[in-house]
Amino acid sequence: MAKNDAPKTAITPTRAEDYAEWYQQVVRAADLAESSPVRGCMVIKPWGYALWENIQRELDRMFKATGHKNAYFPLFIPKSFLEKEAEHVEGFAKECAIVTHHRLVAGPEGGLVPDPEAKLEEPLIVRPTSETIIGAAFASWVQSYRDLPLLINQWANVVRWELRTRLFLRTTEFLWQEGHTAHATEEEARAETMQMLDVYTTFAEEFMAMPVIKGPKTASERFPGAVDTFAIEAMMQDRKALQAGTSHFLGQNFAKASGIKFQTAKETEEYAWTTSWGVSTRLIGGLLMTHADDDGLILPPRLAPAHVVILPVLRGDDTKAKVMEYVDAVAAELRSTSYGGRPIEVEVDKRDIRGGDKQWEWIKKGAPIRIEIGPRDVDGNVVMVARRDRGTKDKATLGRAELVTKIPEILADIQNGLLAKAKQHRAANTKRIDDMKDFEKFFTAKNEDKPEIHGGFALAHWSGEPEVEAHLKDKFKVTIRCIPLSGIDGVADAKDLQEEGRCIVSGKPSRQRVVFAKSY
Amino acid sequence: MAKNDAPKTAITPTRAEDYAEWYQQVVRAADLAESSPVRGCMVIKPWGYALWENIQRELDRMFKATGHKNAYFPLFIPKSFLEKEAEHVEGFAKECAIVTHHRLVAGPEGGLVPDPEAKLEEPLIVRPTSETIIGAAFASWVQSYRDLPLLINQWANVVRWELRTRLFLRTTEFLWQEGHTAHATEEEARAETMQMLDVYTTFAEEFMAMPVIKGPKTASERFPGAVDTFAIEAMMQDRKALQAGTSHFLGQNFAKASGIKFQTAKETEEYAWTTSWGVSTRLIGGLLMTHADDDGLILPPRLAPAHVVILPVLRGDDTKAKVMEYVDAVAAELRSTSYGGRPIEVEVDKRDIRGGDKQWEWIKKGAPIRIEIGPRDVDGNVVMVARRDRGTKDKATLGRAELVTKIPEILADIQNGLLAKAKQHRAANTKRIDDMKDFEKFFTAKNEDKPEIHGGFALAHWSGEPEVEAHLKDKFKVTIRCIPLSGIDGVADAKDLQEEGRCIVSGKPSRQRVVFAKSY
Repeated sequence: MAKNDAPKTAITPTRAEDYAEWYQQVVRAADLAESSPVRGCMVIKPWGYALWENIQRELDRMFKATGHKNAYFPLFIPKSFLEKEAEHVEGFAKECAIVTHHRLVAGPEGGLVPDPEAKLEEPLIVRPTSETIIGAAFASWVQSYRDLPLLINQWANVVRWELRTRLFLRTTEFLWQEGHTAHATEEEARAETMQMLDVYTTFAEEFMAMPVIKGPKTASERFPGAVDTFAIEAMMQDRKALQAGTSHFLGQNFAKASGIKFQTAKETEEYAWTTSWGVSTRLIGGLLMTHADDDGLILPPRLAPAHVVILPVLRGDDTKAKVMEYVDAVAAELRSTSYGGRPIEVEVDKRDIRGGDKQWEWIKKGAPIRIEIGPRDVDGNVVMVARRDRGTKDKATLGRAELVTKIPEILADIQNGLLAKAKQHRAANTKRIDDMKDFEKFFTAKNEDKPEIHGGFALAHWSGEPEVEAHLKDKFKVTIRCIPLSGIDGVADAKDLQEEGRCIVSGKPSRQRVVFAKSY
Repeated sequence: MAKNDAPKTAITPTRAEDYAEWYQQVVRAADLAESSPVRGCMVIKPWGYALWENIQRELDRMFKATGHKNAYFPLFIPKSFLEKEAEHVEGFAKECAIVTHHRLVAGPEGGLVPDPEAKLEEPLIVRPTSETIIGAAFASWVQSYRDLPLLINQWANVVRWELRTRLFLRTTEFLWQEGHTAHATEEEARAETMQMLDVYTTFAEEFMAMPVIKGPKTASERFPGAVDTFAIEAMMQDRKALQAGTSHFLGQNFAKASGIKFQTAKETEEYAWTTSWGVSTRLIGGLLMTHADDDGLILPPRLAPAHVVILPVLRGDDTKAKVMEYVDAVAAELRSTSYGGRPIEVEVDKRDIRGGDKQWEWIKKGAPIRIEIGPRDVDGNVVMVARRDRGTKDKATLGRAELVTKIPEILADIQNGLLAKAKQHRAANTKRIDDMKDFEKFFTAKNEDKPEIHGGFALAHWSGEPEVEAHLKDKFKVTIRCIPLSGIDGVADAKDLQEEGRCIVSGKPSRQRVVFAKSY
């Protein structure tokens, strides 16, 4: 990306200067979240939480439209429950928060200590995910094939004791939803797994304006205990991949571990087939790294907590009343208009601070449209409109009468433009690679402008050997993000990728190109 | 309550037979929640969670309308944070879940144990409430009087290690919202405390149809660390009180503990004044005990997950298509109608089970209106309407054309009727008592029909002595629920209660009657 025309950007450093630090600075400048005094846990601030609420609302609607109901299960999982599925506990034992006592008592050296007499007989694990505790409930809910399918979702907090954390992308505690379903047949459970993968794909593209590639993960990247894990993978602006959501076909593994059995129509007893699927507050990190620029966050209108921010330009008391009356009327007109099936959200920033500071605050926060209204605009019955996806000095005059039709159009244009731009970026940095030298160059070549940025997504042949994966991960920190089931606009259709070829490392026959990339 | 005319009720035992067990059986029959394998933690099932979602939606709207914004803070509180406010830690140390380790490792006797090498330097407390961790954030957010007021709310799970638990009423983990605000002056913080008490009062009465008495608690019943605690208190059908929500004026106690300081307009430095206020999933227990009867739950329409349940009566294949077509059309018509500012929620129960079973299931779940539609109704262009607040055999025929106007009217009538009935019950069981013998009789007299049920709310004079409170609590298990700021319909206006008198125990001069009751 070319440097801004302005001598200085709102975010220091820029993406080109230090991408990782730029990310932290955008989170901070947009007032999305901050680190807390609790290791690896974040405070999600009002602007970040409002974004999460919008993500929740849209996903929740999609889950309910596909027949799922919300419920809530305990935060704590008895250790013995986690141990019921061998691979599962193996995957989570190393990074879990363990509750061992239920009372504090005065310690021998002053201060309070866990009371030795209030030690739990069995330690409780703060849920890292809920397959085992929800499985126990399902086991009692499901008796007959008539009780199936059971389609449940939970909005909750989970804890994974990560050593290296980064706001939104990897935190010890995070917020998510976890869907858990049980079915009478493998076919139905597989269909559910794919349906939810498609829901995530639709959500990512239509709401987040973040194009994704969907497909199964390789065996080494599966969820602990799953038979198959499917993911949606997005390309960030530094060309790394972000796993943005996963949908797992769990086979009968967890049904056997938890005892989810049912009587079939033929009166035989069988284990149910289960799935689980989730997305988390990580999506906010993905949204940021897809759209933000060197001036801060850029919010896709369909998820923005405020679509339009009105900034009254107040110059002296004599015109103040006139301007505010006009501002309130414009706000009311816009609020009675809708975009994307919802009323337009308008924030009027009446704070008594410098106009320039106000402007930059909303630029950094990524509000899609800013409207400035001063005394002369009132006299001319117009407003000044600035789009966040254009340069910060690019402003247009709109007649007041046009607003209710123009603003929804502009919002739609911003939404579409963001998706198109993200697709273009992905297409420009996705390459078919058939030669190991090219592969090495793709992932190691330095670019003078952006020394830390590698090539992007490599579509290369892989024969299915885990050794090849391990070798490439070890040598280049590159992993197979997924075996693509969807195409990549401007690069390849899905069916083009399922071609015959030879593994880029071993030379063995391969039936498909897979997506290799560095990742978060 | 008189026994039902029917030979048998859907809930066994009835309220009169065993109120406590009746409660558990209604929770179960209405499919609201169940106990989990984790001590004291519940699973909130879809019907119960949908009710919670409706409670959340309405409260959230009211919080936002009063200027509050949602945010999210860490689940864990470092022990040293809890210790910053002496009364606060004293109040919660005895019942908190403590995280001491962050990894499981293979134990010497097989199985996994907390890894001694992954012991936390400082134990973390699973939040029982978040004043201290939110206070730490506020301390960094507030610099100047311009940053105030700070008006934040959090929807979250909290954990209090209760020894005796009961679904919804008292559980180890529960869901709640906790508002936390900081203000520049005591006056503003006190106004906020009262505003939120009023929001809770409005919500309880207008949405839950549960009349409440609002007022301050006595010193012995205050939130640990608060200067003043205000509560809303409701009367359950067994005449006990339920504290349904609290709003705390925290003075500068937590500001001093957390260091929430600001520069005033006069450039002096001062501690902020803070408040906190919360309601929880306990409300669901209160709603149940206010309205449910011996046939199960009765939901106030403004919070019901489904306003109308349509039960197609399918007799043989020849009429099935005709009935279903009519059912779908009626459902669509009702869904395009609104009640209480929202579209009417219609559930069509198409399950292939016995009609009687279906009916009783929805009676037990408390759906406000059931509509039965059979082949003859289709021919007559009518439907059969049954109201949950009437006898189970009380059904009326309504013409299809009337439905879109009549159903919202019936819903409003049910909502109003539930509130009126609850007020009547409270009025019938609230007495002014001025003599200790009457007080004793009120709280200990046995009633032949309902041996466990005592008198209800006693409005008696109290001079303010803690010894009197302790004595009455010890002798009768009766506490002062609040010093009423609101009147009690049909019994007394608020100002009538602020009369001069003499303490019922000590005979000392008193300036007001307070509400004495047994409670949950």
